[in-house]
Amino acid sequence: MRRVLPGHGASRGTALGRARVRVPHVLEVAEERIDDVNAELDRLHEAIRIVRSDMHGLRERLHGALAQEVGEFLDLHALLLDDPELLHGLDDLIRTGRYSADYALRLQRNRIAAVFDGMDDAYLRSRIDDIDQVIGRIHAALHRRGADLQGVAGEILVTDNVAPAELAQLQGQGVMAVVTTGGSALSHSAILARSLHLPLVVGATLALQKINDGDVLAVDGGSGSVVVEPDASDLRAHRSRVREQARERKQLKRLRREPSRTLDGVDIRLWANAESREDVAEAHALGAAGVGLYRTEFLFLGSSELPDEDAQFHAYRDLVLGMTGRTVTIRTLDLGADKADRTGLTLDYEPNPALGLRGVRLSLAREALFDTQMRAIVRASGYGPVRVLVPMLSSREEFVAVRARLQRVVDEVREAGFEVADAIPLGAMIEVPAAAIALPGFIRELDFLSIGTNDLVQYLLAADRNNDALGELYTPLHPAVLRLLRDVIRIARLRGKPVAVCGEMAGDATFVPLLLALGLEEFSLHPATLLEVRRAIRDCDLGGLRARAGALLRARDRASIEQWLRQAGIA
Amino acid sequence: MRRVLPGHGASRGTALGRARVRVPHVLEVAEERIDDVNAELDRLHEAIRIVRSDMHGLRERLHGALAQEVGEFLDLHALLLDDPELLHGLDDLIRTGRYSADYALRLQRNRIAAVFDGMDDAYLRSRIDDIDQVIGRIHAALHRRGADLQGVAGEILVTDNVAPAELAQLQGQGVMAVVTTGGSALSHSAILARSLHLPLVVGATLALQKINDGDVLAVDGGSGSVVVEPDASDLRAHRSRVREQARERKQLKRLRREPSRTLDGVDIRLWANAESREDVAEAHALGAAGVGLYRTEFLFLGSSELPDEDAQFHAYRDLVLGMTGRTVTIRTLDLGADKADRTGLTLDYEPNPALGLRGVRLSLAREALFDTQMRAIVRASGYGPVRVLVPMLSSREEFVAVRARLQRVVDEVREAGFEVADAIPLGAMIEVPAAAIALPGFIRELDFLSIGTNDLVQYLLAADRNNDALGELYTPLHPAVLRLLRDVIRIARLRGKPVAVCGEMAGDATFVPLLLALGLEEFSLHPATLLEVRRAIRDCDLGGLRARAGALLRARDRASIEQWLRQAGIA
Repeated sequence: MRRVLPGHGASRGTALGRARVRVPHVLEVAEERIDDVNAELDRLHEAIRIVRSDMHGLRERLHGALAQEVGEFLDLHALLLDDPELLHGLDDLIRTGRYSADYALRLQRNRIAAVFDGMDDAYLRSRIDDIDQVIGRIHAALHRRGADLQGVAGEILVTDNVAPAELAQLQGQGVMAVVTTGGSALSHSAILARSLHLPLVVGATLALQKINDGDVLAVDGGSGSVVVEPDASDLRAHRSRVREQARERKQLKRLRREPSRTLDGVDIRLWANAESREDVAEAHALGAAGVGLYRTEFLFLGSSELPDEDAQFHAYRDLVLGMTGRTVTIRTLDLGADKADRTGLTLDYEPNPALGLRGVRLSLAREALFDTQMRAIVRASGYGPVRVLVPMLSSREEFVAVRARLQRVVDEVREAGFEVADAIPLGAMIEVPAAAIALPGFIRELDFLSIGTNDLVQYLLAADRNNDALGELYTPLHPAVLRLLRDVIRIARLRGKPVAVCGEMAGDATFVPLLLALGLEEFSLHPATLLEVRRAIRDCDLGGLRARAGALLRARDRASIEQWLRQAGIA
Repeated sequence: MRRVLPGHGASRGTALGRARVRVPHVLEVAEERIDDVNAELDRLHEAIRIVRSDMHGLRERLHGALAQEVGEFLDLHALLLDDPELLHGLDDLIRTGRYSADYALRLQRNRIAAVFDGMDDAYLRSRIDDIDQVIGRIHAALHRRGADLQGVAGEILVTDNVAPAELAQLQGQGVMAVVTTGGSALSHSAILARSLHLPLVVGATLALQKINDGDVLAVDGGSGSVVVEPDASDLRAHRSRVREQARERKQLKRLRREPSRTLDGVDIRLWANAESREDVAEAHALGAAGVGLYRTEFLFLGSSELPDEDAQFHAYRDLVLGMTGRTVTIRTLDLGADKADRTGLTLDYEPNPALGLRGVRLSLAREALFDTQMRAIVRASGYGPVRVLVPMLSSREEFVAVRARLQRVVDEVREAGFEVADAIPLGAMIEVPAAAIALPGFIRELDFLSIGTNDLVQYLLAADRNNDALGELYTPLHPAVLRLLRDVIRIARLRGKPVAVCGEMAGDATFVPLLLALGLEEFSLHPATLLEVRRAIRDCDLGGLRARAGALLRARDRASIEQWLRQAGIA
């Protein structure tokens, strides 16, 4: 029977498919006894092995920002998967109880849940989610045929909430769209869904009550409409939306050769965040001003050996050549405790890796490593314009130290007979709040700035962006974030220093009016959303937005900022 | 032979005693084979058991800020102590190599170190420190007689550097003074040494070369002088310094009844950070304005059961009665992932607990827990003036939610027939940078403010204060910290809201001129250093300091701030 469920559009795109309902905290398996204990143990262990290897494979496929995003989530689950209490408990249930692996999973899940259930609070519930997800993975692996990925490909996931880190996985598994009963269009998950082009409807409060597994759904992530068992006219509407989107994509493609110019004629610079050869080619084809952020961590991950000068030089040189004369911005290594794990630098127990020895701190502590990287960058500068970007800067002193090191390396590399560019601009990521606040005292030292909103927001709000237990606490829509962005952009422009934003915010068309109102004229973003951001810029009247900046900066809470954004989006 | 080593005074006080030299990274044990493998294994396991139990005991004895300070450090070592690789390696060496436990420790230490040694960088060296410390603990336990605590009581530790978290342990073990070759008088370690009244000389660069284990030393933590094998005149000088200090302590005691008034006649309010019955009595005796920070975590730690309303009520009521009419400020629960571990709320995998679900976030997520605590506080308000302080506030929204909950609880408690104060002021800790920056938008909601510099600095600099690998990166002497402190104090005073600083900074006389220059007129500090801070205040000319605030705020780096402080200290 046809039903229409109201929801809010959070990530554009349409989907027609069967519903896969994920009810939280429930693993429905009937009690079942088995005869061959060893075979059942083998079956369970094989499933666990598969899950382990899937998770490992997923991690390998991720790169760049996404690797960081999803990485900690996967680490957590890998940790749970290795938890002896969980594993022995399962074995025991099969051995002593002669239960099927499936039923043992359910019993063990309920045992663990019972420990928490008495407590009844959101915090602990969110910890149970992790257990449920790991147990759910094992359960799915027990029943997997061939290379099926949990059998959700082509389906529409209906659930209560979806964590940012899950989204990339779901898309990788072929999920076409997601409908949630909770959430908000400006949540971290929604931002990520948009950057993945995964249709998402949030706030469809009745979805879990009204949708059954296998129901056919027509979902529109733009308007937020969810139609259950669509009739002929719904299907017609769906087809017309699909055509409309194809048309839109075509129009978007036409923007490849258009300038990123506001309605009132101001040109905005769009840089690309690029890492792979494909990113670079795409950045070039889309008319990016250059590469605004080239992360170098991938050269250091995935292998236990550190890349030598030549290996790094070749990577940087290819990047420079790929951009045929447009400037590329190479960020020095931003490795920290959370990522170092994978490089073989184990024995790593920083209690708060995000507040630890990472970025330029690590580089300054590891002289040889840093000099090698800078030599490789300096050599690449002989092939085209290169800028060097320093991550995690927290003080003037650090920047002065890096500047001196760079100058020494330039002299040495020239001495050794290599061609070196006349100038290699040196800039800093503004992502540590102290650097943003103390900027007036050392901006004269910088050649350019790039505001890393992802980390800046995390530190300003003292809220780990990958910690799902925090819900919506992590958000760029906080008055302090806007005020600090405005201050940094203002002082940079006043002193004639180029300043870009390179966090997720810059790649989401939703935030374009806000960033323009704050005075930003350079964005650095992944090529995947560059045209959408360009289109949003072309729809903006910069003068009008700047005139409304005062109202934005007077907002006292998130609700007022969201209201401003809604009005700016419509205007 | 008498020698005088130059150093810098970092924590006042004198000591005369034998040197205990701790050379870093070396465990000198000769190769030794044993016959009875099982006896040797037992010996090793017993030593490990002792270390585990010592560490547990140490943790139990810690309370308040110190528990937080030392806690993570102990957790880390406890983790290493449980590392199967370390333990199995040791057992194997004894079993297969028939080595003594001592030599096995050395071999295993070197094996682990060899993995890192090829890397040659400060970061990894600092990780080896942890291994060394744990192995050193086990080694000491192998040779411990009775209840001896590593046999350092009455000695003076001479070493390269000392971590903040070690200081409390060293003092607990009876170490009389510490001399380091590195370090600075304004480091986190030095701040902690002063608050512990543990004499400390830093920058005695030749100490490790010139001092041998067992040498007699005369150390003066005020002037920074270290005399090896003192002669008659040195001993006379030492005695006269001891007398001088006794006199000073006596003079300090006289300040018990004196006002905390600057030279130019401005009264500064000194609140006490108090937790135990003794703290409260001491606060009262020293003439503290009241209790500015009463941490409630200790009620929740150390037991797996949560304290019920009556248990909490009795603790809060006794506090109120103990202060006989002076105001007490009760901070609601500031439990987070790092501390929750000990309450039995396990299964806790926050990757960055400092950026996680802690403080008011946890309280708002756990309704029953929070309501119980607020009911107990509200009931205590019937016995004397009580203020409620909310930790980890990051937005206006959170504060409004707490205010509404408090009002509901007040109504309910009154309804139930309890006596409730007419007004229970509600304030917030300003320790999340976003709250400090966005303060103008919600300060009207607050009745009072308390600036938690410990966390505020940690988040502003994105530097975990308990992470020794960061060296001196964590410091309140950063231009951004001063600027934000000034802003918060200024807006609070402008709006007539009482504002105090309650971090370590407030309890260190060194920082008094700086905080006064920034406009602060209320300090909240542990009674242990209250009289020293009062004396420092009485030595300050507030008008002169405020006139020099501009120079302080123009400082661009740590060196300039330190210079300002030196000048202010002398002036």
